[in-house]
Amino acid sequence: MAESVSTVAWRAPLDDLRFVIADVVGWDRYPSSADGGFDRALTDDILAEAGRFAEQRLAPLDAVADRAGVQWKDGRVTTAPGMVEAWQAFCANGWNALDAPVESGGQALPHLLACAVEELWAGANLSFSLAPMLTSALAATLVRHGSPQQRALWLPRLVSGEWTGAMNLTEPQAGSDLSAVRTRAVAEASADSVMAAAAAVDNGAAGDAAAGNRESGNDAGQRYRLFGTKIYITWGEHDLTGNIVHLVLARTADAPPGVKGLSLFIVPSVLVDERGGLLGRNDVRCVSVEHKLGLHGCPTAVMAFGDGEGALGWRLGEAHRGLEYMFTMMNRARLAVGVEGVGLSERAFQLAHRYALERVQGRAIGTDTPRAVPIIEHPDVRRMLLSMRVSTEAGRAFALQTAMLLDASQQDAQAMARLELFTPIVKGWCTEQAVLNASTGIQVHGGMGYIEATGAAQVLRDARITPIYEGTTAIQANDLLWRKLRRDDGVALNDWLAEVDRVAAAIGACRFAHAMEVSRALAAASAQLTESVGFLLRFTERDPAGLRECAAAAVSLLELSAVVASGWMMARSAIAAESALARGDPRVRLLARKLDHVRFHASTVLPMAGLFSAQIRGAGEAILSADLSADY
Amino acid sequence: MAESVSTVAWRAPLDDLRFVIADVVGWDRYPSSADGGFDRALTDDILAEAGRFAEQRLAPLDAVADRAGVQWKDGRVTTAPGMVEAWQAFCANGWNALDAPVESGGQALPHLLACAVEELWAGANLSFSLAPMLTSALAATLVRHGSPQQRALWLPRLVSGEWTGAMNLTEPQAGSDLSAVRTRAVAEASADSVMAAAAAVDNGAAGDAAAGNRESGNDAGQRYRLFGTKIYITWGEHDLTGNIVHLVLARTADAPPGVKGLSLFIVPSVLVDERGGLLGRNDVRCVSVEHKLGLHGCPTAVMAFGDGEGALGWRLGEAHRGLEYMFTMMNRARLAVGVEGVGLSERAFQLAHRYALERVQGRAIGTDTPRAVPIIEHPDVRRMLLSMRVSTEAGRAFALQTAMLLDASQQDAQAMARLELFTPIVKGWCTEQAVLNASTGIQVHGGMGYIEATGAAQVLRDARITPIYEGTTAIQANDLLWRKLRRDDGVALNDWLAEVDRVAAAIGACRFAHAMEVSRALAAASAQLTESVGFLLRFTERDPAGLRECAAAAVSLLELSAVVASGWMMARSAIAAESALARGDPRVRLLARKLDHVRFHASTVLPMAGLFSAQIRGAGEAILSADLSADY
Repeated sequence: MAESVSTVAWRAPLDDLRFVIADVVGWDRYPSSADGGFDRALTDDILAEAGRFAEQRLAPLDAVADRAGVQWKDGRVTTAPGMVEAWQAFCANGWNALDAPVESGGQALPHLLACAVEELWAGANLSFSLAPMLTSALAATLVRHGSPQQRALWLPRLVSGEWTGAMNLTEPQAGSDLSAVRTRAVAEASADSVMAAAAAVDNGAAGDAAAGNRESGNDAGQRYRLFGTKIYITWGEHDLTGNIVHLVLARTADAPPGVKGLSLFIVPSVLVDERGGLLGRNDVRCVSVEHKLGLHGCPTAVMAFGDGEGALGWRLGEAHRGLEYMFTMMNRARLAVGVEGVGLSERAFQLAHRYALERVQGRAIGTDTPRAVPIIEHPDVRRMLLSMRVSTEAGRAFALQTAMLLDASQQDAQAMARLELFTPIVKGWCTEQAVLNASTGIQVHGGMGYIEATGAAQVLRDARITPIYEGTTAIQANDLLWRKLRRDDGVALNDWLAEVDRVAAAIGACRFAHAMEVSRALAAASAQLTESVGFLLRFTERDPAGLRECAAAAVSLLELSAVVASGWMMARSAIAAESALARGDPRVRLLARKLDHVRFHASTVLPMAGLFSAQIRGAGEAILSADLSADY
Repeated sequence: MAESVSTVAWRAPLDDLRFVIADVVGWDRYPSSADGGFDRALTDDILAEAGRFAEQRLAPLDAVADRAGVQWKDGRVTTAPGMVEAWQAFCANGWNALDAPVESGGQALPHLLACAVEELWAGANLSFSLAPMLTSALAATLVRHGSPQQRALWLPRLVSGEWTGAMNLTEPQAGSDLSAVRTRAVAEASADSVMAAAAAVDNGAAGDAAAGNRESGNDAGQRYRLFGTKIYITWGEHDLTGNIVHLVLARTADAPPGVKGLSLFIVPSVLVDERGGLLGRNDVRCVSVEHKLGLHGCPTAVMAFGDGEGALGWRLGEAHRGLEYMFTMMNRARLAVGVEGVGLSERAFQLAHRYALERVQGRAIGTDTPRAVPIIEHPDVRRMLLSMRVSTEAGRAFALQTAMLLDASQQDAQAMARLELFTPIVKGWCTEQAVLNASTGIQVHGGMGYIEATGAAQVLRDARITPIYEGTTAIQANDLLWRKLRRDDGVALNDWLAEVDRVAAAIGACRFAHAMEVSRALAAASAQLTESVGFLLRFTERDPAGLRECAAAAVSLLELSAVVASGWMMARSAIAAESALARGDPRVRLLARKLDHVRFHASTVLPMAGLFSAQIRGAGEAILSADLSADY
């Protein structure tokens, strides 16, 4: 190393998380413990404890695990030194599945709080954080679709962290398009009483075993043998726990082609008896782990199911509804990945900010002093840091707003519609921003950013997967356009934009400097989004070429929506900050900064609305007509 | 690896290079061999030969060297298998220092051609390409500032590639700000007749040896002992050649503080006699090599000069003019790094384009066919590929335009002014685009992009250094603002923009579809640049706060300038393409594509002018007044 660098220390951004939760999104939307809800004071403690665990146990392990990577040998994977102990401490402290139901040993806390905590795990150690993220996603799927016996057998051990979960969707020929999944599930003639047999007699399904495609009732006890290869299986094989519960998307023999023929199967890596006691290995093997750009601390496995007699699996829920079941947890998983983006942006900011405060280089412009100054004095370094900071805070507020909607959506159809509208925007935008912020973070470091020891480069390497997994940015954008806007003809969007316009009016009445400019910029961006959506929805009424032109504009539309959404959250933050300051709130620095940040956002981010609008209107035909054939 | 991937094959983009050189920038600006110039037909062959060498020898070595990295042991560095042989073949084929003077064994070809060839080296293997890049930069400095004896001793071996060159500027406390350089050079009382003594008696300087700071005359024969540590020394130690000639920026005992006290020294890693025969090691040691994000194929060394009795060095040119000498080659080096950005963008495009043609996934939108299609059919994949392609072609045309100005600048003051104006834009913009394009290239690959075997991730890792070395983007932007715009009050810029407006008018008269829209968009962007520069130059007349606000807008100004510059080059390309098509030119596909590309550029890139203008006008005060102090 060329230069001494402060130890990479990351601090949990608790103050901003608390501000967003309490002052912007609003704890008061939740019933308190007195009203049968939960204890808000306790949640503050939970956040503080999570921050401590993330700072002390997870963050120091991040670079260590990045350097050590994971070792594959004869189908088994060894994680970096310290990972097993961190997992055990994580589970012992009750952090696994904070929002899991109480009956499975979870704490049933709001998703809002769970997402705030997940940001801490991801910011401290993204590789590690994916193990609990996937485990709780799998647990949530079991809660919703598992038979009572399946829930009884698998859930408590997933929630306690005795076992982890892994999602097995992708195959070499089936990535974004899961209709191409080929993994086969062959129903067995009769259930095996030795292995996980408790579920097998559920609902008398054993008698229908040969049918395999029974559509009604929950015959999830049916046992199958699975044959196929799955790729990109995060935490698909490891040494953290004695068992790994795989959820596998596969096709039964009689299934119709396409996505409507896919069922979901529980396939443990080690077979268990009805009380969860470990028996022998299942026919599930980790063939290799990928050599990736980042996420070196976590194994990304190629999994072979059924190299021999077939991997034993038990169907979850009904046959042929596998993809539908996956989608019921998609909102949650996509929100979680958006939150990862926020955590990575925060990490990138902290590294760059610290470096800029410490690194002395160059003279301050506009002064005569020959003394070199910390580079944070240089205007362009300030610009880069502010852009990172504002993007992080806007993303955090928007992601947590969406988490609140996830909580509210269970009783509230409007909240559900808005949740569905926001989810692809959170996922797409916060992850794309994470990549940009990580890249800017390197730039702030100058040459030191290119040296792995500073940690800035790792953030970029880790962040780069987030706009890809759980659906690429284009997948999110098409989800936004076709399912969230076109399906309801823009009703949920217009309902939201009416609220944005009210917020724009409200900030215009604020007294901080330049509030009126912020108001005007937000209203203008909102109008551009309204106009762009109207333009695109008219287009979708046309011929197939019109549909294709819309699809060509989808990512620009997602970006335009994110510009408005981030402006909306920054404006609400500033309004909350001004009123808290007026009340004499002691968090003066944090609150005053919100006023700085909304102004920077209005002068640098909101003007992007004009660019994206122009791209939406102007680029479609050029994109479709261009000759991109082979011989460049 | 999860999936079979075609062998990473890269093809030299000869057709587009030829089009830019012959049809856009214009070979006809150069005297032909009949007029005492050079043989244009021969240069076409040179390009083809360079393409073959890059494809067959350098490109296949790129991933190999990335994986193998470099090994440091006891101060010596071993490069990846194949690198030594590639270097020897490169030199044997005469590729080193194409534009070096004939008297040193060079071919004295135009920089325009040299830059085109350099794009091939960088696109094929950036790590490798830095060895000849630095060697020829060092040779150019010697040509200009070396004494006859120094030139005679060092140049032929640098030009032949028997030895390589390395630039030693940066120190731990002196990166962007070289005034902080501390490496000391202590003049010896008398010259040593054994080692490189030829130069020592040049101009009778030996008699003045003790003075050391003599300002007039060329006393470069004075011998010094150097003491200090240099970092980030690309190819500072390696096994390609038997000697490495270091140019070292250092401070003599009597030197004034700051940049005006720096001198430049020739310090070979192995001492030589007056005929260049190798003697023993100099007191120059490679202390370590950096563990970097990318460029794994090339060593980035920490160099210790004078751990013992001092590293022997010979001053280049006059004392205290070291930084000035470095700057005389800065235009060339910065242009070379901009060209690297173009090469990397081309590489990223080719990888993504090939993958998109081969990867079958998902159904085509707007059709009823259930058949999965190559992802290049999906509109957003097309959008991403076109954005990469157009950015690459615009960057290439602009970089080669600037290379032509470098050739012309020796006789033409207007060309010199424009060269100086363009150089920071080429460097800043083409490298930032390379990072974005590499990132987009990964996105086109989806999950496969995150797997190192596809090569897409390596392009991002390699590209990320280019906006940092040879002056960060902010350094380029401040150079543009203060030295290139403010110093002449915008005269060179306005002269150029008048030409841009003429090109905008000319394309408006073209007959291809949407030519008028392109014309309007270019004229609008040009007007926004004019207005923004006027706004900033008025600001610089104000107080120090005004200067700081300008500096806060510098990068946005560079980006706005690049938007206009790229639009100018795309428009010129389209005009040239239309007229070639009208003449019946057989390159129909390439020419028709230029018309596609100018239109895409006008609808996606030119509208960025409005965004950058808004940021220039609106963000300065917010950037400067925001509270970025420590306790976030």
